[in-house]
Amino acid sequence: MEQQTQDKSTMVVFSGDLDKAMASFIIATGAAAMGKQVTMFFTFWGLNILRKEEYVNVKKTFMDKMFAKMMPQGPEKLGISKMNYGGLGAKMMKYTMKKKNIVTLKELIEMAQDLDVKMVACTMSMDVMGITKEELIDGLDYAGVASYLADADESKINLFI
Amino acid sequence: MEQQTQDKSTMVVFSGDLDKAMASFIIATGAAAMGKQVTMFFTFWGLNILRKEEYVNVKKTFMDKMFAKMMPQGPEKLGISKMNYGGLGAKMMKYTMKKKNIVTLKELIEMAQDLDVKMVACTMSMDVMGITKEELIDGLDYAGVASYLADADESKINLFI
Amino acid sequence: MEQQTQDKSTMVVFSGDLDKAMASFIIATGAAAMGKQVTMFFTFWGLNILRKEEYVNVKKTFMDKMFAKMMPQGPEKLGISKMNYGGLGAKMMKYTMKKKNIVTLKELIEMAQDLDVKMVACTMSMDVMGITKEELIDGLDYAGVASYLADADESKINLFI
Repeated sequence: MEQQTQDKSTMVVFSGDLDKAMASFIIATGAAAMGKQVTMFFTFWGLNILRKEEYVNVKKTFMDKMFAKMMPQGPEKLGISKMNYGGLGAKMMKYTMKKKNIVTLKELIEMAQDLDVKMVACTMSMDVMGITKEELIDGLDYAGVASYLADADESKINLFI
Repeated sequence: MEQQTQDKSTMVVFSGDLDKAMASFIIATGAAAMGKQVTMFFTFWGLNILRKEEYVNVKKTFMDKMFAKMMPQGPEKLGISKMNYGGLGAKMMKYTMKKKNIVTLKELIEMAQDLDVKMVACTMSMDVMGITKEELIDGLDYAGVASYLADADESKINLFI
Repeated sequence: MEQQTQDKSTMVVFSGDLDKAMASFIIATGAAAMGKQVTMFFTFWGLNILRKEEYVNVKKTFMDKMFAKMMPQGPEKLGISKMNYGGLGAKMMKYTMKKKNIVTLKELIEMAQDLDVKMVACTMSMDVMGITKEELIDGLDYAGVASYLADADESKINLFI
């Protein structure tokens, strides 16, 4: 039992900021590389990290369309949590990371999928924000808070990001 | 011993944003519904979630009065952490959640109290922000960081929100 | 084994906001005072908390110089996460805390060091932000995410702040 808990980690990824998203995937891929079963539970703004970059034609209410327009669509469009200055900060950070050969968020997401990190989109948040499965990247699980809590309960490391 | 830890969860609710407050109460009520003893420890901006909506006449210093005026008073007044646009974002989110029959923060707080979630107001933060017990909703505990740590120590799930 | 875990706590200090920095050091010193081995892992904006206040002459690229200039240098310069109003909010908070005899962030950092809290600067974040060891306060450890995860794995309380 104790052994089992040692080998699991969960994260609630609430934030949709580039810097926090990077932090969460760096921790997640690091833990997965060390042999842990990692679950990332994406809620609220965190769902934006998982949005496909290309436009997906789905029927939506006016309000849902507005939300979708206003929120960043996928890893390339995210801002940073401080000093973003309308996207300039995010650009500077990406520029400097590239120069220093640090992996991009997109590459981190692919690494996470290769390492079998369980990526779960919160269905209640999808409902609130009017985001459909078609608009999110492939390979996700879909579940609610009870599923998150079941995983968290068996995890040694639980974070809210 | 291990059994005992399994059954407890704690959260530090530092944020006073509507979206993060909702996330914390959704997790808290979910965990409580699954039979866990949940402790929510409200510090700094998180105290605003617990403020009574009506004005309470208490004697305060000029600075404390100013703080109290500037900070949101209760669940109906909270902004959201992103795209708030002076309260418009919060209104949009509440509108869309109502349309989709999702429980409000106020209802979640009541549910948490019904489920015996232990809600603790951080006394040091109350001191800093000049908030008195009379200004907070009923049914709270009052304690400091040592009390939080004692609960956290016996908990399986510990989050900082 | 179980006993060992009980006695450790870790925190990822991602935020460089005065209020969140204070919260993290209040929890860290509280836990250390209770006899726990506490590790604080400073990443991204959290590194600003550890910057020396005086100017340190190190050779940097133009981009790194710009980052360094734009980011707050040490505990006295940090803003607060809400209602900062270009630093006014942080000043108000510090003024009111002083009036109420609450320890300052600087004092909390010293307390943490006296209590042997292990303070680790994330080397990858230092690289991204172009911050060198010479620019950070003395007595720090330097490590990456694998080191953090090893500590987290043995900890009862894990927080992301």
